[in-house]
Amino acid sequence: MIENKTVELAKDQPLLLDSGKRLGPIITAYTTYGQLNDEKSNAVLVCHALTGDQYVASKHPITQKDGWWSNVVGPGKSIDTNKFFVVCPNVIGGCMGSSGPKEINPVSGKEFGTDFPIITIADMVKAQKLLIDYLNIKKIFCVTGGSMGGMLVLEWLSKFPDMVHSAIPIATATNHSAQNIALNELARQAIMADPNWQTGKYYSSPDKPTKGLSVARMAAHISYLSKDALQSKFGRNLQDRNELEYSFDADFQIESYLRHQGFTFVDRFDANSYLYITRAMDYFDVTSQHGGSLIEAFKDTKSKILCISFTSDWLYPTSENKKIVKVFNSLGLDVSFIEIETDGGHDSFLLEEPKFFEALKGFLNSTFDKI
Amino acid sequence: MIENKTVELAKDQPLLLDSGKRLGPIITAYTTYGQLNDEKSNAVLVCHALTGDQYVASKHPITQKDGWWSNVVGPGKSIDTNKFFVVCPNVIGGCMGSSGPKEINPVSGKEFGTDFPIITIADMVKAQKLLIDYLNIKKIFCVTGGSMGGMLVLEWLSKFPDMVHSAIPIATATNHSAQNIALNELARQAIMADPNWQTGKYYSSPDKPTKGLSVARMAAHISYLSKDALQSKFGRNLQDRNELEYSFDADFQIESYLRHQGFTFVDRFDANSYLYITRAMDYFDVTSQHGGSLIEAFKDTKSKILCISFTSDWLYPTSENKKIVKVFNSLGLDVSFIEIETDGGHDSFLLEEPKFFEALKGFLNSTFDKI
Repeated sequence: MIENKTVELAKDQPLLLDSGKRLGPIITAYTTYGQLNDEKSNAVLVCHALTGDQYVASKHPITQKDGWWSNVVGPGKSIDTNKFFVVCPNVIGGCMGSSGPKEINPVSGKEFGTDFPIITIADMVKAQKLLIDYLNIKKIFCVTGGSMGGMLVLEWLSKFPDMVHSAIPIATATNHSAQNIALNELARQAIMADPNWQTGKYYSSPDKPTKGLSVARMAAHISYLSKDALQSKFGRNLQDRNELEYSFDADFQIESYLRHQGFTFVDRFDANSYLYITRAMDYFDVTSQHGGSLIEAFKDTKSKILCISFTSDWLYPTSENKKIVKVFNSLGLDVSFIEIETDGGHDSFLLEEPKFFEALKGFLNSTFDKI
Repeated sequence: MIENKTVELAKDQPLLLDSGKRLGPIITAYTTYGQLNDEKSNAVLVCHALTGDQYVASKHPITQKDGWWSNVVGPGKSIDTNKFFVVCPNVIGGCMGSSGPKEINPVSGKEFGTDFPIITIADMVKAQKLLIDYLNIKKIFCVTGGSMGGMLVLEWLSKFPDMVHSAIPIATATNHSAQNIALNELARQAIMADPNWQTGKYYSSPDKPTKGLSVARMAAHISYLSKDALQSKFGRNLQDRNELEYSFDADFQIESYLRHQGFTFVDRFDANSYLYITRAMDYFDVTSQHGGSLIEAFKDTKSKILCISFTSDWLYPTSENKKIVKVFNSLGLDVSFIEIETDGGHDSFLLEEPKFFEALKGFLNSTFDKI
């Protein structure tokens, strides 16, 4: 059973954001798969990445493509929807129906644009907590997600330790490195350099900052793939031609691929959301409320945890994921770690990786059996 | 003795470019340091990188900063101008006085813009050969350069093997990987996305594509530094503030650094030159006229060679430089290789690297003594 829903929360008491500002009511658009059991003990909260959304395993309403984790979530799959009740909310700041810059500001009656308050990963998690409360789930069986999704997992473990039975942070980090911030800043500058961005107030204009957003997406794609994967997939192959054309056309397949990624992305994503969500990722530091100490940040965590990294991921490399494992080990928690050997780069958590699928399935089933 | 000169060559017979088009007359702006000896046996040809120029070791006329290799070239330095006659021409396609898109097209009387023909690394070398002939130098003592400069060195070794006594290719490759092409394509798309680019015809317009060029430069800077260097230099340090500002300002030092690199670059560099030169780098394949064989490409090379790479360079990693060493070894040439341990990334050839300076000096002096 797949359901797409939208709920309005924090109506009476707006949510206090990390910035000190308040946001409310908060609209959360979410999708559920499978059925919540009577004990409400089988909920899996899936947290999406930067450009992901709630369409985890169902057709995307804009692109008409399969959901971003269709190979992982579904009947009989690693996250088995015959067994688990999967919930995936679009994060606040997003652009697929949850409160974000492209939604209407109830105060002005116009789109928020850059009047939307700056939000953090912790704010996204606080908004997700409102949804979980609304669904009357006292304890989530498992919180999981890759990349930014993994940051949300870590924040859940730190902020609401009693509500998380188990967790699977994937290809993530406890905070952004200077290189991570640099790549996001490049993307933001590309968007803001587009005159159609109009300081974020482009919604009623016929011209949207699609060129800037497209360049931002190209930069992201370069960082999602490993050097080896790019080389084996594209190398120096030419695109639909036998010889160089001595022009600025897309002579090489890699150029054509990047242009395509850029062009298609702008149909489904909002440039302001890209600014807000990358900002939240750069600001994220799970220790920020804990004096910089990872031990302090996770001192109340009791969950069973599986951490997963990929060998060729240079954006959130194994070393960053091992930091997470190390702190959970220091705290004597039940933590497992698996590094998947692959040349798929950071994107590996979205690709066909049988060992990854196996690890997810094994952990979820054995943990569920022991409840 | 430092001299800045400009010469017009290929007046009677325009240069045949790889594209099949012809370019001529060719203006070459170049700088010389030191004095050519009577035997004309002490010339060192320095080939600059993508955004370098002929101001190797003298004040830059626009930025007023020291030349880009002031720490390497000069009296008593690794490339000792008391001993060697250093020549550095601005490449064709460049923007510091040599024939390029911002210069006047003699046919139209207006700036070339994108009517300038697409040029290759081989075309740049053919133009340099005209200059060396003009200077009456039969054999260059040493050809050297880093990054794109190293590509020119390789092309010299392949195309004019009898004119090169020795060579030092630094932090380079025999062709661009898919990742290299991807990063350059990102830069080109950033420039061409700027409406002020006006398909390259912006010279008489008050508005130049500075925002697009600035984004391109930011992307390049991320690739020039290693992840570790970015982390130790910037980490998550805030810029002139103690707390996050919850805005899109440059909160982090790395953001401020990148914005500064972008803003300042546009004063000294032409956006169209950036397009042409990155295109030449992506097109470069030293084997392209030799059936894809490195052995064939260098079969007539007789020079003494020193190859240098840097451990943390992920743009032109040691593995790419070793390919070059391997082919010279197969050919039984006198080739040395040194990998410098540093976290400076690709930019290391421009930084204070004592072991690098030592290697250059040692090779040049001992090779010169044996002439």
